[in-house]
Amino acid sequence: MGKKILVIGGVACGPKAACRVKRLDPSVDVTIVEKGEEISYGACGLPFYLEGEVGELKDLTTTPVGVPRDVNFFKAVKGVDVKLNTEAVAIDRKNKKVAVRNVKDGTQEELPYDKLVIATGSSPVTPPIPGIDLEGIYCLKTMEDGSRLKNAMENSPGKNAVIVGAGLIGMECLEPLLKAGFTCHIVEKLPFVLPALLDEEMAVPLMKHISSKGVVLHCGDGVESFKDNGQGRVSKVVTEKTEIDADLVLLAIGFRPNSQIAQDAGLEVGRMGIITDAYMRTSDPDIYAGGDCVASFNIVSGTYMYAPMGSTANKHGRIIGNNLAGWNTTFSGVCGTGVCNIMGFNVARTGLTERDAKAQGLETITSLCPAPDKPHYMKGSKLIHMKMVAEKYTGRLLGVQILGPGEVLSRVDTAAAILKGRGTVEDVFETDMAYAPPFSPAMDNLIVAANVIQNKMDGLISSYAPAEVKAKLDRGEDFVLLDVRTPKELEQMKLPYDNVVHIPLGMVRKKAADELPKDKEIVCMCKISLRGYEAARMLKEAGFDSEKIRLLDGGIVAWPYEKIVNM
Amino acid sequence: MGKKILVIGGVACGPKAACRVKRLDPSVDVTIVEKGEEISYGACGLPFYLEGEVGELKDLTTTPVGVPRDVNFFKAVKGVDVKLNTEAVAIDRKNKKVAVRNVKDGTQEELPYDKLVIATGSSPVTPPIPGIDLEGIYCLKTMEDGSRLKNAMENSPGKNAVIVGAGLIGMECLEPLLKAGFTCHIVEKLPFVLPALLDEEMAVPLMKHISSKGVVLHCGDGVESFKDNGQGRVSKVVTEKTEIDADLVLLAIGFRPNSQIAQDAGLEVGRMGIITDAYMRTSDPDIYAGGDCVASFNIVSGTYMYAPMGSTANKHGRIIGNNLAGWNTTFSGVCGTGVCNIMGFNVARTGLTERDAKAQGLETITSLCPAPDKPHYMKGSKLIHMKMVAEKYTGRLLGVQILGPGEVLSRVDTAAAILKGRGTVEDVFETDMAYAPPFSPAMDNLIVAANVIQNKMDGLISSYAPAEVKAKLDRGEDFVLLDVRTPKELEQMKLPYDNVVHIPLGMVRKKAADELPKDKEIVCMCKISLRGYEAARMLKEAGFDSEKIRLLDGGIVAWPYEKIVNM
Repeated sequence: MGKKILVIGGVACGPKAACRVKRLDPSVDVTIVEKGEEISYGACGLPFYLEGEVGELKDLTTTPVGVPRDVNFFKAVKGVDVKLNTEAVAIDRKNKKVAVRNVKDGTQEELPYDKLVIATGSSPVTPPIPGIDLEGIYCLKTMEDGSRLKNAMENSPGKNAVIVGAGLIGMECLEPLLKAGFTCHIVEKLPFVLPALLDEEMAVPLMKHISSKGVVLHCGDGVESFKDNGQGRVSKVVTEKTEIDADLVLLAIGFRPNSQIAQDAGLEVGRMGIITDAYMRTSDPDIYAGGDCVASFNIVSGTYMYAPMGSTANKHGRIIGNNLAGWNTTFSGVCGTGVCNIMGFNVARTGLTERDAKAQGLETITSLCPAPDKPHYMKGSKLIHMKMVAEKYTGRLLGVQILGPGEVLSRVDTAAAILKGRGTVEDVFETDMAYAPPFSPAMDNLIVAANVIQNKMDGLISSYAPAEVKAKLDRGEDFVLLDVRTPKELEQMKLPYDNVVHIPLGMVRKKAADELPKDKEIVCMCKISLRGYEAARMLKEAGFDSEKIRLLDGGIVAWPYEKIVNM
Repeated sequence: MGKKILVIGGVACGPKAACRVKRLDPSVDVTIVEKGEEISYGACGLPFYLEGEVGELKDLTTTPVGVPRDVNFFKAVKGVDVKLNTEAVAIDRKNKKVAVRNVKDGTQEELPYDKLVIATGSSPVTPPIPGIDLEGIYCLKTMEDGSRLKNAMENSPGKNAVIVGAGLIGMECLEPLLKAGFTCHIVEKLPFVLPALLDEEMAVPLMKHISSKGVVLHCGDGVESFKDNGQGRVSKVVTEKTEIDADLVLLAIGFRPNSQIAQDAGLEVGRMGIITDAYMRTSDPDIYAGGDCVASFNIVSGTYMYAPMGSTANKHGRIIGNNLAGWNTTFSGVCGTGVCNIMGFNVARTGLTERDAKAQGLETITSLCPAPDKPHYMKGSKLIHMKMVAEKYTGRLLGVQILGPGEVLSRVDTAAAILKGRGTVEDVFETDMAYAPPFSPAMDNLIVAANVIQNKMDGLISSYAPAEVKAKLDRGEDFVLLDVRTPKELEQMKLPYDNVVHIPLGMVRKKAADELPKDKEIVCMCKISLRGYEAARMLKEAGFDSEKIRLLDGGIVAWPYEKIVNM
């Protein structure tokens, strides 16, 4: 009889760990217990099942050639035993046994282990809001949830949907709901969407995009209760500020790690989940943990974060499998990388936002670069907004946020690889990114963003973030906003402030001395602030006081406040 | 009077260097001489202009907001003087002067310099093939070439096009020619297409793709002469093996660095172009060189290569600009990254091919992974083939090749970033690549390819490349090809060899002992060899001799030889 390995949880990390150790050491005896009806399914595909991008729900549970990944498959192909509908209720570390309960018939038994893997995943956050148990209120986490929500969408008594929480799941479910004919409201406690991924200024273009698609945003507002229609069904969502008609509510406030069983067993558990070392071992050397139930070590911040991701869960599984087989391999951690597509608008982030970095006490330097994702002369080029964050004195890359209708994946993944290597903005510049006009501009957006930071580090330019300029305007400060765009561009879009002076870039050398004050601060800008940068250099050359010349980061395109637009 | 900086060449590197130094040090006096009619244009956009993806040729010469980047623009905005139609003919290093000639009126003059930048670019290779000067034979390099070829396509006497050379430009021009109604033949001296980018086994799927679009490939064939139609116009291309009717010929054999002027001046020039140090300085410390005329240092191989790329030229320009301003910044080099789209088929490469690595004397270990670019359950998922090359004993990543209808850019850029950091396959695994079903699978293709190499390094599996198995078959060796796909998959596609044994993966544990010989070598395979790997592990577990169990890399999908297909 081989070493007994017991795995709690059968979605991503658990099966991966089980199959990996069995491949490495066929002598082991591996059992997975899973409280649900299905094993090894693509939970991340659920929003796309709702949308129709996945043919049938069962496609999430089969191999690429259509073989069901069921109990028989695991036995015949993987040599792994699986017990479905089986919930682990307690770990007896002393006697190395786990008490499990059959959720169908309630019977209990004890399963012995030599090594244990906790891969219990996560659960949707469901705060004790009055009315939260009413009919018509759904979460989206398991296959059963997916099936239930799809059914609810098809049989809803009305077409008013309210999503609570503007995180990844909530935002990904907008498109399926709109496609199914629902009007959608989103209620988000924080003042902007995707708050875990983005800085506020970067969320603004996304918020404009979803508003333009008819979604009603209630940011900076919290749900106080759900109203009953008198028959046990939700009829309204009552927020701090308003009431919203609701036939269907999706609770998407976030997920919390299923770490209770570990905590009850006396294992070290933090606010972000079960604590493991780099071997994915818990505080008990015979117990490993991975996937959505553990705290992830963020290699950029050097701190723990909660980053439940199918990609990371699979990596954890491989590492745990190795270590169960006695290989002693480690996992460095994650960068908090994420990507999504919200109704044709791509959003990606890796590393730290400026807010994250500041919360860690890091001094940062940032760039804000909205630009086409391909050479501007290509008909298929599309805008992407990029914000890069670096450590102020070393230039070490800390993170990027990229969003827009254009391509974001290559940029975020490249940045993630550079973060893995603790690279600087100079390393970004030196990365030999692929260039061809159907794919990318000669100087990739990521490289331009790095160069802007390098220019700031080199003292070539001092800049203000949009929020800083807005604050100066709001305070009524006396300064000049120098817009150096062409007259045609000015007609199409401009800032509605009295202190804007317009001199097209080609005239700055000639006119600056006559038309601009030498005693006031001058904030240069253009469409994206590349020409603004040239103008700032020209003013310095023309003898204006360097200390008084600034750039508006990201130009008018990245300006998230008032604009006059005539398109 | 400021320091005089003279720049030879006005396309990419030259203008970039000129403008950068002027921004850093407005006191300098910068002049660009350019032998053509245009400055600072997007030469790489020419194939897409032919195709209709670029509206007008002049779009390649304007800024994103439509301002022409002409002599006036450079003067007014950049503070840089430009002399068009001005060819540099000789460099007098002793007296620090460059003799230039006006190509319109033939007048000569001498321009003094304190610092000189050579950014003379490249020229198409035009070997002395009989008939090469006939009418109807074109190159594609300059704006003038683009205009001439577009005109020729619109006014061709017939619709037979022959492309000589299956490199990037030749392949990129297939689509515009086909769209314009031409039948296309490609003649390539080497036995496969894109030989500078790909290993032969990776070129096969691309060759099948372009053949399926009606392109006639003549690989391993060379042009011997061009036949005259009696009126000074090409009528046929005569190759070593055949004759091809030709109304229009595109010469796309490659480019060579315009390094003659540097060589004549006694500067160090190699086979790959002008030699510079990491400061982009030539062997004369007062002369810098960059862009297509220099040899690029390949950071992966540690040797010089010829890699003319608009992206690199721009980087060179920035570095040269810095150093002209006295900043002393360096450029590490390139990885030979490239990407293209050939009629809906993406192709990307970074680092070394297996052939490149072997030519450097490196011992390699490779993986071959054809797989969907997104989770298989997503309707929009598309195939990509990936080949990864690593150093045999250290696992250091050496290169990847990726191609297919699916997404390649994020994978190649991520790999380029890892190459920059001299990362290993373990670093690939640990890179926190973005995951969401509309973008990528939970275990990205790049990570899977790295894991396969890690498994090989760990001795979990020994494999054969397709070519090795083909050689065994051709030699009539006695071995078993174990196909573990489902019966349904077998019906759709199979290998036409007598030694194939079929046991679906789920039956391998049961049937192996009875149906497989213990004394013969067994080469396991499936669709992409992931299940083949599982089968190989099962056989070892079942007591088969480890030494006799092998995997066919990439499975039947990557098999570039005979297949029986019933779709």
